[in-house]
Amino acid sequence: MAAIIYVLNGPNLNLLGTREPEIYGRDTLKDIEAECRARAGALGLAIEFRQSNHEGELIDWVQEARDKAAGLVINAGGLSHTSVALLDALIAFGKPAVEVHLSNLFRREAFRHHSYVSSAVRGMICGFGQKGYLLALDALADWVKT
Amino acid sequence: MAAIIYVLNGPNLNLLGTREPEIYGRDTLKDIEAECRARAGALGLAIEFRQSNHEGELIDWVQEARDKAAGLVINAGGLSHTSVALLDALIAFGKPAVEVHLSNLFRREAFRHHSYVSSAVRGMICGFGQKGYLLALDALADWVKT
Amino acid sequence: MAAIIYVLNGPNLNLLGTREPEIYGRDTLKDIEAECRARAGALGLAIEFRQSNHEGELIDWVQEARDKAAGLVINAGGLSHTSVALLDALIAFGKPAVEVHLSNLFRREAFRHHSYVSSAVRGMICGFGQKGYLLALDALADWVKT
Amino acid sequence: MAAIIYVLNGPNLNLLGTREPEIYGRDTLKDIEAECRARAGALGLAIEFRQSNHEGELIDWVQEARDKAAGLVINAGGLSHTSVALLDALIAFGKPAVEVHLSNLFRREAFRHHSYVSSAVRGMICGFGQKGYLLALDALADWVKT
Amino acid sequence: MAAIIYVLNGPNLNLLGTREPEIYGRDTLKDIEAECRARAGALGLAIEFRQSNHEGELIDWVQEARDKAAGLVINAGGLSHTSVALLDALIAFGKPAVEVHLSNLFRREAFRHHSYVSSAVRGMICGFGQKGYLLALDALADWVKT
Amino acid sequence: MAAIIYVLNGPNLNLLGTREPEIYGRDTLKDIEAECRARAGALGLAIEFRQSNHEGELIDWVQEARDKAAGLVINAGGLSHTSVALLDALIAFGKPAVEVHLSNLFRREAFRHHSYVSSAVRGMICGFGQKGYLLALDALADWVKT
Amino acid sequence: MAAIIYVLNGPNLNLLGTREPEIYGRDTLKDIEAECRARAGALGLAIEFRQSNHEGELIDWVQEARDKAAGLVINAGGLSHTSVALLDALIAFGKPAVEVHLSNLFRREAFRHHSYVSSAVRGMICGFGQKGYLLALDALADWVKT
Amino acid sequence: MAAIIYVLNGPNLNLLGTREPEIYGRDTLKDIEAECRARAGALGLAIEFRQSNHEGELIDWVQEARDKAAGLVINAGGLSHTSVALLDALIAFGKPAVEVHLSNLFRREAFRHHSYVSSAVRGMICGFGQKGYLLALDALADWVKT
Amino acid sequence: MAAIIYVLNGPNLNLLGTREPEIYGRDTLKDIEAECRARAGALGLAIEFRQSNHEGELIDWVQEARDKAAGLVINAGGLSHTSVALLDALIAFGKPAVEVHLSNLFRREAFRHHSYVSSAVRGMICGFGQKGYLLALDALADWVKT
Amino acid sequence: MAAIIYVLNGPNLNLLGTREPEIYGRDTLKDIEAECRARAGALGLAIEFRQSNHEGELIDWVQEARDKAAGLVINAGGLSHTSVALLDALIAFGKPAVEVHLSNLFRREAFRHHSYVSSAVRGMICGFGQKGYLLALDALADWVKT
Amino acid sequence: MAAIIYVLNGPNLNLLGTREPEIYGRDTLKDIEAECRARAGALGLAIEFRQSNHEGELIDWVQEARDKAAGLVINAGGLSHTSVALLDALIAFGKPAVEVHLSNLFRREAFRHHSYVSSAVRGMICGFGQKGYLLALDALADWVKT
Amino acid sequence: MAAIIYVLNGPNLNLLGTREPEIYGRDTLKDIEAECRARAGALGLAIEFRQSNHEGELIDWVQEARDKAAGLVINAGGLSHTSVALLDALIAFGKPAVEVHLSNLFRREAFRHHSYVSSAVRGMICGFGQKGYLLALDALADWVKT
Repeated sequence: MAAIIYVLNGPNLNLLGTREPEIYGRDTLKDIEAECRARAGALGLAIEFRQSNHEGELIDWVQEARDKAAGLVINAGGLSHTSVALLDALIAFGKPAVEVHLSNLFRREAFRHHSYVSSAVRGMICGFGQKGYLLALDALADWVKT
Repeated sequence: MAAIIYVLNGPNLNLLGTREPEIYGRDTLKDIEAECRARAGALGLAIEFRQSNHEGELIDWVQEARDKAAGLVINAGGLSHTSVALLDALIAFGKPAVEVHLSNLFRREAFRHHSYVSSAVRGMICGFGQKGYLLALDALADWVKT
Repeated sequence: MAAIIYVLNGPNLNLLGTREPEIYGRDTLKDIEAECRARAGALGLAIEFRQSNHEGELIDWVQEARDKAAGLVINAGGLSHTSVALLDALIAFGKPAVEVHLSNLFRREAFRHHSYVSSAVRGMICGFGQKGYLLALDALADWVKT
Repeated sequence: MAAIIYVLNGPNLNLLGTREPEIYGRDTLKDIEAECRARAGALGLAIEFRQSNHEGELIDWVQEARDKAAGLVINAGGLSHTSVALLDALIAFGKPAVEVHLSNLFRREAFRHHSYVSSAVRGMICGFGQKGYLLALDALADWVKT
Repeated sequence: MAAIIYVLNGPNLNLLGTREPEIYGRDTLKDIEAECRARAGALGLAIEFRQSNHEGELIDWVQEARDKAAGLVINAGGLSHTSVALLDALIAFGKPAVEVHLSNLFRREAFRHHSYVSSAVRGMICGFGQKGYLLALDALADWVKT
Repeated sequence: MAAIIYVLNGPNLNLLGTREPEIYGRDTLKDIEAECRARAGALGLAIEFRQSNHEGELIDWVQEARDKAAGLVINAGGLSHTSVALLDALIAFGKPAVEVHLSNLFRREAFRHHSYVSSAVRGMICGFGQKGYLLALDALADWVKT
Repeated sequence: MAAIIYVLNGPNLNLLGTREPEIYGRDTLKDIEAECRARAGALGLAIEFRQSNHEGELIDWVQEARDKAAGLVINAGGLSHTSVALLDALIAFGKPAVEVHLSNLFRREAFRHHSYVSSAVRGMICGFGQKGYLLALDALADWVKT
Repeated sequence: MAAIIYVLNGPNLNLLGTREPEIYGRDTLKDIEAECRARAGALGLAIEFRQSNHEGELIDWVQEARDKAAGLVINAGGLSHTSVALLDALIAFGKPAVEVHLSNLFRREAFRHHSYVSSAVRGMICGFGQKGYLLALDALADWVKT
Repeated sequence: MAAIIYVLNGPNLNLLGTREPEIYGRDTLKDIEAECRARAGALGLAIEFRQSNHEGELIDWVQEARDKAAGLVINAGGLSHTSVALLDALIAFGKPAVEVHLSNLFRREAFRHHSYVSSAVRGMICGFGQKGYLLALDALADWVKT
Repeated sequence: MAAIIYVLNGPNLNLLGTREPEIYGRDTLKDIEAECRARAGALGLAIEFRQSNHEGELIDWVQEARDKAAGLVINAGGLSHTSVALLDALIAFGKPAVEVHLSNLFRREAFRHHSYVSSAVRGMICGFGQKGYLLALDALADWVKT
Repeated sequence: MAAIIYVLNGPNLNLLGTREPEIYGRDTLKDIEAECRARAGALGLAIEFRQSNHEGELIDWVQEARDKAAGLVINAGGLSHTSVALLDALIAFGKPAVEVHLSNLFRREAFRHHSYVSSAVRGMICGFGQKGYLLALDALADWVKT
Repeated sequence: MAAIIYVLNGPNLNLLGTREPEIYGRDTLKDIEAECRARAGALGLAIEFRQSNHEGELIDWVQEARDKAAGLVINAGGLSHTSVALLDALIAFGKPAVEVHLSNLFRREAFRHHSYVSSAVRGMICGFGQKGYLLALDALADWVKT
């Protein structure tokens, strides 16, 4: 059976395609899910793709992933910069995880330059739009195998 | 049909009238809702008045307002000072919004002097007690018409 | 006899209508004075409307208002961010006062996010253009009566 | 009837026993609940023991405790360091409350050295593992009686 | 023979009962010593209870405790916030130690929110008045046995 | 002919006796002037006693004092904390000067703990109420003679 | 008719030649005015040369210059570091302006390293003594023509 | 002819494989070059792969790339955190660029959390070891085509 | 019997007259004691004049003064800037106290600009050399009588 | 023989005319060199005009200038903000030096507001485009003669 | 007679050999004294070697050394980072002094990176274990002779 | 064959003897090299003594020393305070290294108080002039042998 990767999306990512397209691009989250699913298939992985505006729900899912997933991709949106609770969940996850952001955080407001998530993942990718998710899956495919 | 204004209230505002009345006054949130409804009627507006202790639910409602509302009044309570995710939802809202606080934040603890909400709204009103909501509706009435 | 409200305007507000209209709007200070006078009349108040580029003159006027006014509206312009002396005058005023700014200070440069004035007034309104003055008068009308 | 103490646990405390046991110990939250229940019984108190990963739910419970509880023990986990909304709920609680942390926060990352919760409780205990809960109950037993 | 616990008190704690009773309570240090002695007896421990206004003397005592004591309770008073030398002595102590403060430091001036002592002890208790000493002894009783 | 001491008072000191008497005392500036005049007479000095709410006027007076005065007492009020221009005038003064504040600045808001004036005077006195002026004159009497 | 350049000097510059000559040189402001007038004549410009110790008067003059001048040279002295109100006037000026300081600010106290004026002018010159005024006029001559 | 991508490596990357292998892995820079060359070939790109310990030489190469390259991958090593000059060169480059770091900078010393390079590139990848270079090439392949 | 004033001197003040005379003057501590004794006599006060290099001893003396003295003059030397323990003793003293420094602290290194002592005394005098002690006694004479 | 002025240009100034022309103008470094040469000739000076992207080479040149040059103009580009080594070389130069920047640094990113170079030169000119070099030569011509 | 060097050791250095040997080494203070004595003899110097946990005693000794010693070696332990009073004593010492630390302070906690002692000595040595004392004596031997 | 010690000198150290002799002394780098060579001979060591103004060259040499040297002495001059790249090279060096500065950095400007080099060496010596190099060699001689 294929290893499962949880792909978790935080607040406001459900608005993709309509929200500030000059920053976040015109594809919707559905489009990204489809691309992820295709790439995962090619890599021999299964994915569980979710989005929530609720910090608590994201934490629940990261905890759920401890049992069910072999790896994790997370774009925590605005929570990246403020949630120690999410950081703690990710530390407890203990398996390979990757942080993705659509935009290059370092070209935006100063409060987006620090992410609690970054210190609990193996790698971080930002500024590549939805392609960042695919790069993350590529990397996880290797890590999950070893 | 009358334009709809969402009036959203954050954590602990359901305690109004009983919580620290020397700071927040003795009227309940029900009283404020009633006053808002009356003023909105006089201004030719409809209102959707809600309260939640959950950041995620407030974000859901701001997103819902993108489709349904012509404007928005928000008193995000303690989340004002900590929630980048709520800020992002308000940026995505894209229509006239007003921030209201019952007390004058600048006479309180230093951590209440900064509000993420402020940078995503057109105007900010604080220190007028429940009257602040009515002033906000007055201002929105003009903006919504133009 | 009608209670008097002092409406005091600080440096550069005499340039309104010509200075950075994309930030401050196209109405002149004369226009704002006229609107204030009309609203005050409707509220049963008299107003004393003044502008000065001189910190000392504004302090003199706040002191004068201690004897003559029942309330005070102040838009201290750039002095808001730098004048402890004006803060002290406002503390000494001791009656209801409201701070108004035409623009939303929190969407501008960081040094405009802190106002000494804010900690000496009952309420603060910013980002509503000249309408902010009218909202301030509405609020003062209530406070002055009680 | 015995006075009720709410014992509230924040994000990730449901993972106890499996998450970083070198920091948090090997007992589960169930074990801690059992120990608390035993000690409460001995002290003539009843307890209501809960855990949530959701800030909003914790705030709901603190509000509920205003009516139902005589005192409160809270280990807010990662929210301790970030939630002004929870702080506000605790201020509104108004009865004796104690903050507990399993680990000594001051030997960990700098961002764990500040807790919003601390400024809204009577006392704070950290570094004693699950025993901290029992110490908290001992202290509350005295305060609740007087 | 019973294990010995050193209970060390720093500057100004000899004034207890007369100094700012609204913060520190009305019991004297003698009262606290008596309570500690009683509790220690019940726990099968002996205590050595001392107070000094001299940093150097406290350091001497912590060093002495390396040989003679099985554990240590310390309320370093104002030195908690300033003494790296005391911190170093406590690090060298190497056996279980607990920090106690009568008042909740986190509701007082900012310079009392950081304690060098905290990073050299196992656990920290503050805000419980003299009861904090007893809670500390309870905790040490367990640690000393194991 | 008696040496002249300029005694300069900054913004809001004309309100003395009526403004926050719990901080500044109940004597008026006239009372202080009278006391200063009496003490100066006893010390064989003449005084020039002035007050202004205008930074520029205070600078004019400090410059005037370069030619006419042998020494200077200054209570710059709120300008103490903000005026580099006044600092520069005092540096240019070049003769003995003393800074006086009625209240103890160090027990008030943090922004009152720094005074630009302090670095341009020989001595600083605060917290003694109007008596501080007399102490300043005593000190200047010595310095002016030598 | 020749284009007019306003040359505005702030607090304490009237003391030039007598105040700290090791920093500011031995020429008086009259000398500088004469040199400016000569250079302006050679460049086909007229100048309006003024000095004031009053922030408000300097703002009045910058506002006056909006109508009458083609360009502006400003040495705001100590106000450079503290006056947001002057900054706002300069932003409203909207034509070519140059900031001049006699001394090299960056070799003096840290509070002189930041100038609000700098962000509202085209160019800044410091450390060249009175020659800086002439360099400023040279530069303005070009800009005013184009 | 295939588009050329410059792959530039900063100080100490020539030590790869021998320097702190627990952080940077055991592959040498030669190995990485070979992997990049293979991937580039598969993507229809040519690469120019270089390393230098000299800031100036890296700047020369970025400038050279303005004419010769269609895109750029840069791992500036320690210079990432300190070189404004390199930042300026990258801003001047003006075509798609990607920043790569082998390790996750956000799990290392605080001074490695800020990179000047980040604000001049489209995307940033860190923590994936040498695989990061391949992910960067994948991303550039898309950008270069459009 | 005459009221007693404790005059306490901290570390290194025993070196007066030989230590950095350009900062502290050429009089010895004996000279200052003699001048204080003379002035106290004239004011109808007795004095207890002491010096110690030991923080603990100074705290002991402040505590002793609670019973024996009507007022206190303290020059805590370098401890002023570092000793919270001394601050706490002074808060507990509860009667009129004055802080004296020989030199003007605000013209020296930045770490001397903050004194913990300042926030626990009624008034502060610095920069007047030994005369500061006499000014302090004058002020205390008044306070002790009322 | 004419006195020689070294005109040294730092990283990326070789790109002038093509790099961000809206900030740096459209003239090339060759154009600036030609203008400098012409002006130097008119002033009776010779110039040595160089550019390097290498910090070390710029330091070598500043050291060379100690023997060969009578004065120095330096535009250190991005190194201005980061190079203590260049600062030290300039301090060692010991003859008149002027810092030039094409753009007004104070209207750009915060990290460009501080220049190490500024504290080692006599004067600083920024915001005048290439004309700044000519102003610098004018000033040096005077200084070199005296 | 041989010149005397005072070798003063601060808090906790009496624990050497038993305290954190991985940081401080396994030699005792007695061993270090013996090595110092041997080296001093070889250099023609006498030494006075002492240790105290009391800040005040160390200050007394530094003062004593003003009369009796030709030079001073000081390892102030934890007091290095906190004692302005010790700094003042060392400034008053006025003869050659050297600061020694066994460990490299800059590889330890941030609060150990600043030493007040450093600014009052000629030279500082850290990280060489007990050998640092010998290096200090070597250096003092030269200075004392000249 | 004798073990080799690399003695590396950074920017501007080639100017020794002529540059600020009151800070750096009157000996040239040649003199220091000669002294080092003599001492090394006496210690049974060989030395490779070099100086460069180029950061990159110093990094090259540190890398070269990995293969050829048994230990390293480095005085990185101004680069000490700014070069993370040099820090990384020194971390990679992995054998005993000592940092030397001629002057006591802690008595100079604040930006010289932090050295990146310090955290990558075993020991640091500053303030002893050229003698510091010899002390460094003495220390290395021991370390290299063990």
